Amino acid sequence: MKRLADCRTVVAGLGLMGGSLAGALRGRCRTVVGVARREATIERAQRLDLIDDGTTDAEVAFRDADIVVLATPVRTIVSQLRSFGPAMPPGCLVLDLGSTKADVLAAMERLPDGVEPLGAHPMCGKETSGVDEADLDLYGGCTFILCPLERTSNAALALGRELVEAVGAEPLVLDGARQDRLVATLSHLPYLLACALVQTADATTSADPAAWTIVAGGYRDTSRVAGCDVRMMLDILGTNREAVLRSAAVFRERFDRLVELIGAGAEEELEAALTGCRDERRRMFP
Amino acid sequence: MKRLADCRTVVAGLGLMGGSLAGALRGRCRTVVGVARREATIERAQRLDLIDDGTTDAEVAFRDADIVVLATPVRTIVSQLRSFGPAMPPGCLVLDLGSTKADVLAAMERLPDGVEPLGAHPMCGKETSGVDEADLDLYGGCTFILCPLERTSNAALALGRELVEAVGAEPLVLDGARQDRLVATLSHLPYLLACALVQTADATTSADPAAWTIVAGGYRDTSRVAGCDVRMMLDILGTNREAVLRSAAVFRERFDRLVELIGAGAEEELEAALTGCRDERRRMFP
Repeated sequence: MKRLADCRTVVAGLGLMGGSLAGALRGRCRTVVGVARREATIERAQRLDLIDDGTTDAEVAFRDADIVVLATPVRTIVSQLRSFGPAMPPGCLVLDLGSTKADVLAAMERLPDGVEPLGAHPMCGKETSGVDEADLDLYGGCTFILCPLERTSNAALALGRELVEAVGAEPLVLDGARQDRLVATLSHLPYLLACALVQTADATTSADPAAWTIVAGGYRDTSRVAGCDVRMMLDILGTNREAVLRSAAVFRERFDRLVELIGAGAEEELEAALTGCRDERRRMFP
Repeated sequence: MKRLADCRTVVAGLGLMGGSLAGALRGRCRTVVGVARREATIERAQRLDLIDDGTTDAEVAFRDADIVVLATPVRTIVSQLRSFGPAMPPGCLVLDLGSTKADVLAAMERLPDGVEPLGAHPMCGKETSGVDEADLDLYGGCTFILCPLERTSNAALALGRELVEAVGAEPLVLDGARQDRLVATLSHLPYLLACALVQTADATTSADPAAWTIVAGGYRDTSRVAGCDVRMMLDILGTNREAVLRSAAVFRERFDRLVELIGAGAEEELEAALTGCRDERRRMFP
């Protein structure tokens, strides 16, 4: 397996995640090639110095790739693996940046022999999207989950680690099913809460012009991720449904209990519950 | 009514909010006096240069005050108004920093004639508490709600505005009941969501040591306010119960609907709902 510096790396999808990764990899690989559906996106990525070269033809780009990074929404990743897998050369490392791994790993399993698949999920992002939002520091310090398959060679995993470290992130090897369960609670549930909170504000307060003057940090932070890319989130929710529904059910039970305690004026129990939350939150983020 | 620069300002409660306000007012008033229950807190506030003078005897301090700021939890504010109101001199401006206004304004109504009450609520804060967290910039740029009573003179309201502007905040005059309704959705509901989210993580993922390595920005932001001071929040929830329960009920309905759409795989409706949330969030915080 090659070293990163010798690799022709093809990044398919030049949105926030792909554009930022391409830009951060430039100069660390032999060549960084960007693939997008639209010419305009490639031109923009070139003007922003994110890629060495670009094309709208994924199949052609993949044919000479040493590394392919699929930085598209989860269900697009799955269909790209199916359509373009046969074009990928033996020894090519294929990784994705999708937030859920079950469907992606299943599709990676069916890649031609010799291709080296590696599921991946960087735990970073922003509530914005598009190539213009690309940020060379986006991956700095973030945990970058890697889910090798049984067929993935140690050399391919090592090259994946090298790529992750090259963009300043920290690799964490995890089983795919375990990662899907964890992110359901730690990432997908917070998104649903943010959306339902925005809808609640819309229904109860937004008719009042004072609302947006007084909006405080609590609301701003809690609602932030509601601004995320919808296509990306639809794919995530659609491919991690069971785990998301399980987390949502636990959340509802806990939320209802807190509301019940408030309604009943059950001060002592409410205090114990809120103190537990505060301590736990402070333990998580000291 | 005096100008701020001539005032002896007594701040009762030297936690995050009171300590920060005292420190920001120092040099802008003739004297800033801190009142706390414990000697140690006063000594600490003095070492941090937040106050000119301090005492544990609220009644004595209030007797010579030109301005009294009650920076304690809401129900303590109410009992301080009741206990120490008779000690406040005629012409004294009394304002509070409580997050809910109904009970505070009712108690202010009963202050002796001549005392000038002004309900107030600065829309800032941090998920920390205590005098050591005091921050002279805490109020910079924040909206500082002022709720004058019918008995409040224009001169007293003007002095209140001067104080707010002196700490870098922007005064917004609002009716008390309206402010309580708004903050139920924009501040108290986000707190409950954060707490229930922390409990959900505790129940579903925290047994997995990888959870805290992969925790991403979405979770961190959405759970942030769960770290707030519990005593303060108990008072807020207890004195704004009806409005909080109403907001919670709307939230639950919206959350349940999103979960239902996910469960049913109703992609088109889910996309429309999530797109609405994204657009609304981006409109709020462009």
